[in-house]
Amino acid sequence: MSLQYILELLGTYTFAISGVLAVKGKSEDWFGASFTAFVTAIGGGTLRDLFLGSYPLVWVEDITFVYIVLLGIATASIFSGVLQKLRRTLSLFDTLGIALFTVGGVEKALSFDVRWEIAAIMGMFSAVFGGVIRDTLINETPVLFRREIYASACLAGGLVYVLLNYLEVPRDYNFILSASFIVSLRILAIKLHINFPKL
Amino acid sequence: MSLQYILELLGTYTFAISGVLAVKGKSEDWFGASFTAFVTAIGGGTLRDLFLGSYPLVWVEDITFVYIVLLGIATASIFSGVLQKLRRTLSLFDTLGIALFTVGGVEKALSFDVRWEIAAIMGMFSAVFGGVIRDTLINETPVLFRREIYASACLAGGLVYVLLNYLEVPRDYNFILSASFIVSLRILAIKLHINFPKL
Amino acid sequence: MSLQYILELLGTYTFAISGVLAVKGKSEDWFGASFTAFVTAIGGGTLRDLFLGSYPLVWVEDITFVYIVLLGIATASIFSGVLQKLRRTLSLFDTLGIALFTVGGVEKALSFDVRWEIAAIMGMFSAVFGGVIRDTLINETPVLFRREIYASACLAGGLVYVLLNYLEVPRDYNFILSASFIVSLRILAIKLHINFPKL
Repeated sequence: MSLQYILELLGTYTFAISGVLAVKGKSEDWFGASFTAFVTAIGGGTLRDLFLGSYPLVWVEDITFVYIVLLGIATASIFSGVLQKLRRTLSLFDTLGIALFTVGGVEKALSFDVRWEIAAIMGMFSAVFGGVIRDTLINETPVLFRREIYASACLAGGLVYVLLNYLEVPRDYNFILSASFIVSLRILAIKLHINFPKL
Repeated sequence: MSLQYILELLGTYTFAISGVLAVKGKSEDWFGASFTAFVTAIGGGTLRDLFLGSYPLVWVEDITFVYIVLLGIATASIFSGVLQKLRRTLSLFDTLGIALFTVGGVEKALSFDVRWEIAAIMGMFSAVFGGVIRDTLINETPVLFRREIYASACLAGGLVYVLLNYLEVPRDYNFILSASFIVSLRILAIKLHINFPKL
Repeated sequence: MSLQYILELLGTYTFAISGVLAVKGKSEDWFGASFTAFVTAIGGGTLRDLFLGSYPLVWVEDITFVYIVLLGIATASIFSGVLQKLRRTLSLFDTLGIALFTVGGVEKALSFDVRWEIAAIMGMFSAVFGGVIRDTLINETPVLFRREIYASACLAGGLVYVLLNYLEVPRDYNFILSASFIVSLRILAIKLHINFPKL
């Protein structure tokens, strides 16, 4: 198992937890919450694969992703009290999740020989569309309209990846550097309350 | 024409009617209602086919499905008064519809050589995503967050199908048994007001 | 560059502008607005291509479309004051946009040897689904439920195209005639306040 694979599973796990917590306190029962968690965790990667025409889809081919989602749902159900208090830690997990999904998405797109701009966009889509679908399902304003530097951090990180890739930085270094860039940018934006200007 | 084909057409017909009735009393004109009906009736199967990479899509290949939707729209327009009173009967139709779509979806997924867990999930998606898209379009809470045992009945029925399939129960018997299981589970849940616990 | 290609780019450009203006005055920052613009401009064509199984997607293959969207976003940001006053002109651009997308969508679908009914539906989907996704994202009632003769004008224009195509009217004439039909129908509907009857 490669480090990247482990990190992708971790990203999926974190997204599943965030899906359950998103409907917490709403009228949904736990099956609805599980459905939301599943869609949140696999939505971004699924859309990326559909856009690239990459079949079979990741979760259709590798059942591990389905069970990781179930594990995330179980975790969120059992430890929901603790997790509520750990919101800050969770936010860090989510940030790690979007960083990993972005870089993984860019890599996959590049393997389809698309241009660098498209690869960066696909990376961002992988990271944020799960959350967008989750928020649409539960009738909330999509996360990317609410948060400080979020989708934009993913797009920026995606661009860093394709730049370093062009400069022939080895793949493993690039993976770590680009993901760290996204995490740092996002943490900095939260700490310093950096936002894009309103329209 | 196989029995399954006829039943699938019947499911599509019922879903089209439910799409029209969903926007009834809202501000939509009848073209908007027809659009909603079309999306409701073909949405679940379309997503399943996109997820499996199954081309051409069912309704793109077989125009009968488009005309069945039009027939459902016409029925709902002409008999809307009567149908409003028949809500209980319609709910039974909807239940029959999700049962048929689930089993048909599982079968199709299995023909793509996916694992049994994936097949059951695809069956559920076929059955409920049309309604989810419909509710998202009209800005309502998706049906699967509102109703008693609904998507979960489909998932359970999908699992029954793959189990009986594994036990080499003949396809036709399996089809009838699994669909009946879903219908029974759903009716029981409605009669006895069984719900999943809230989160 | 063919005339059709130029007109398609113009349609994409207009849709990007309408995406930015749609979130104007809401709480979104300009990155969120740009994301919305991108999804609005490429959403309809993307869904059509997914439904047809047409890979690579138009914007994945031809980067020009991505830059045209960026140009539209820049235009909307810089001239937002002027554009607000030009709402009537913009509405004309939008009408031109849906007309071009419809005819382009029908042509593409026909190249996949689908039936004429499917081609007309694909044309309508190409034209209106970008707006539907935009409105779903920002939690508004989809445009096709609000406006006078909108999606229906596209469907009618799509049917005109397949009819003229059947009558062997040369492609270029057909393109102009069908697109003009849509524009005229829509302008007439707005001027005369023609609506479909409520349900």
